[in-house]
Amino acid sequence: MIEKSAVLIAVGDELILGLKKEANAYWLSRELVLHGYDVVALEVIGDDEEVLVDLLNRWAGKVTLIVISGGLGPTHDDRTREALAKFLNLPLVRDDEAYDQIIARYPLESRENLERSREKQASMPKGARPINNPLGSALGFAITVKETEIFALPGVPEEFKAMAKHLLDSLEKEALLHFALCKVIGWPEVQLKDRIADIVQRYPANIMFLPEPNVVTVAIRGPERLVSSLKIEIRGILENDVLPEGVDNLEEAIINLASKLDINIAFAESCTGGMVGESITKVPGASSVFVGSAVCYSNQAKETVLGVPKEVIEKNGAVSEECALAMARGAANLFETDCSASITGIAGPSGGSLHKPVGTVCFAVTCLQNHRTWTRHLQGDREMIRLWSNNIALEAVWRELKKLDGKRRSEGSN
Amino acid sequence: MIEKSAVLIAVGDELILGLKKEANAYWLSRELVLHGYDVVALEVIGDDEEVLVDLLNRWAGKVTLIVISGGLGPTHDDRTREALAKFLNLPLVRDDEAYDQIIARYPLESRENLERSREKQASMPKGARPINNPLGSALGFAITVKETEIFALPGVPEEFKAMAKHLLDSLEKEALLHFALCKVIGWPEVQLKDRIADIVQRYPANIMFLPEPNVVTVAIRGPERLVSSLKIEIRGILENDVLPEGVDNLEEAIINLASKLDINIAFAESCTGGMVGESITKVPGASSVFVGSAVCYSNQAKETVLGVPKEVIEKNGAVSEECALAMARGAANLFETDCSASITGIAGPSGGSLHKPVGTVCFAVTCLQNHRTWTRHLQGDREMIRLWSNNIALEAVWRELKKLDGKRRSEGSN
Repeated sequence: MIEKSAVLIAVGDELILGLKKEANAYWLSRELVLHGYDVVALEVIGDDEEVLVDLLNRWAGKVTLIVISGGLGPTHDDRTREALAKFLNLPLVRDDEAYDQIIARYPLESRENLERSREKQASMPKGARPINNPLGSALGFAITVKETEIFALPGVPEEFKAMAKHLLDSLEKEALLHFALCKVIGWPEVQLKDRIADIVQRYPANIMFLPEPNVVTVAIRGPERLVSSLKIEIRGILENDVLPEGVDNLEEAIINLASKLDINIAFAESCTGGMVGESITKVPGASSVFVGSAVCYSNQAKETVLGVPKEVIEKNGAVSEECALAMARGAANLFETDCSASITGIAGPSGGSLHKPVGTVCFAVTCLQNHRTWTRHLQGDREMIRLWSNNIALEAVWRELKKLDGKRRSEGSN
Repeated sequence: MIEKSAVLIAVGDELILGLKKEANAYWLSRELVLHGYDVVALEVIGDDEEVLVDLLNRWAGKVTLIVISGGLGPTHDDRTREALAKFLNLPLVRDDEAYDQIIARYPLESRENLERSREKQASMPKGARPINNPLGSALGFAITVKETEIFALPGVPEEFKAMAKHLLDSLEKEALLHFALCKVIGWPEVQLKDRIADIVQRYPANIMFLPEPNVVTVAIRGPERLVSSLKIEIRGILENDVLPEGVDNLEEAIINLASKLDINIAFAESCTGGMVGESITKVPGASSVFVGSAVCYSNQAKETVLGVPKEVIEKNGAVSEECALAMARGAANLFETDCSASITGIAGPSGGSLHKPVGTVCFAVTCLQNHRTWTRHLQGDREMIRLWSNNIALEAVWRELKKLDGKRRSEGSN
């Protein structure tokens, strides 16, 4: 038996058929790691009693924790209860008291339906402990077998999370493994690996690279002291390019810094189609700095809405740094902001030319008196090019704000 | 041995740590189902030789196909080759010829690096057949054990897909299972289930419901004739609410219909922050009908950019049908379009009041002379409320276009 080890099992035909991405086990996996657990496997299986019994036979007695997501609902293809009973060679018995508590939460008119599901949803293998479901009607349960704690929770994401959080609370807090993330902006993964190669060579098992468009997350894990010293070392080297601790993404970094500097922001978007505005407004409280974004997909709209001069487009094309600059200035003007950024490019799959192939994207950023324009040639499909464009524009805004912050700080200290 | 059965194994610490969502196995799972395979399990495990050996022992001889994604790279924690050699009790041998072919694709300056990785990346268990990697440097391989075909492919998504497609091509095309999807718009899952309950009761094993915000996908699977007759039956009942066959999403349906009708479209967005523009521009060719979207997050921007009268906001608030209508009209005006839709609401987590709690979202749609406004009270977190709002606004545009299409058709036939 591996101490503090876990296997997570997600049950559902829709998961195995590629129709729905499994999310419960993924989420819990990370949470368990943060609680010091060694997650040995995530297993995604269909609504298949036999396969589940087989898995339970395989893992019970080998890991300390098994959490099953799904298969507890009222329909015939929900087989988790039956599989556990079969595996344990125990009968299913109803826990009417626990089910009554659940039913009591529902309005009278729904209770008839819930009564019809009682036989199924109130049942659990003899000796199992019921786990209350605060959001739905399927009862969860826990049972200990060969020193393995087995939890069966419903697969509805909100219900699973609420009940799993309860489980996490009950786990001892003392974590064996610690975890730190450094989110590095604007570095290609290969160059970043070279830059911190000596650290990685010293502690290869403790450092992982997770690339996303224009952002590489360096994940550090291990005992607390090691994680903390590695983190300081890596942050030291990449000082100008790493997001502040506790900040999850560029959007949050921008909002925090712009709030502090009292700078407001607008965007002008063409090929990203609104993605930049959408990203920044993912963060609650974006309204303190974000005023708006003008998504101008047609050239006509670039002219009439953003005031890009017709000649600029005629002479340079809509995908040009000149057009990008006019768009950014137009957005700052339209939304009356201190700072703005624009994106205009060819996301494909069609629309490219020899001179401007698919992936050509022009950017501009303005911040108070400053402005900057540049062009990137991006790889990948339409969605990838848009994501890169989004993150490159956000990076530029972040760097302008950092510059301004530095300037104000040095003025303040003079 | 279950005929035409498969197990997919994804290897990588980043997957198990919840840092990166597994996508290769999910994608292949669906593809295999469409090729008539019964996918028994997706197994996600860390970079752990022993666990992989254990899995291979468990599944070899039980399913006809095992595909492993990942663990073939050049670093010490890539253990898939070693695990297979151990499982087979065969030595690792280099296939230099196959690796030379890969290296030949690279520019001279990269070859030194690739030579350093030769020992690792060119190796495979004795007797395995190399599989060329058209996009990267890690060789894949295949080997048959106890009548199970085992494929080991690299985890880099583009490489995995390219190589797996080759594998899929080689599988016999004759599918045992067929598949059809009906995407139903605007129905709560429970009511939809009631509406087609008699069909579901007749063929429960063949019908699955996959709810997303404002869209429920009804997936039908089974033998070809059954799928085709169920599909016709379900489409018949839900005629007005189901996307046309072959259309994946509302965005595509809107673009197709608007193109046909020669109608262009604009949006005015507040709480969705650009999501609607972003969604519609996901579809290549959106530029034929989508002109732009004005993301006006602040009240000031709603007034200056969209021309919402100050009094409308003062009297009714920015989250009101009056404001939504003024926004939609403003967008149609600004972008000079035939059709427009607007969204203004409280996505939370803060900003709610007793009268207008979090989740209150007001909408308007205009199409030529028509307009309509309405309010919804949505459940869920910020992201969920925004997604629902997005899909509700798109639904409204789609229905307006359908109405117009019906009208023009009946005029045409008169």
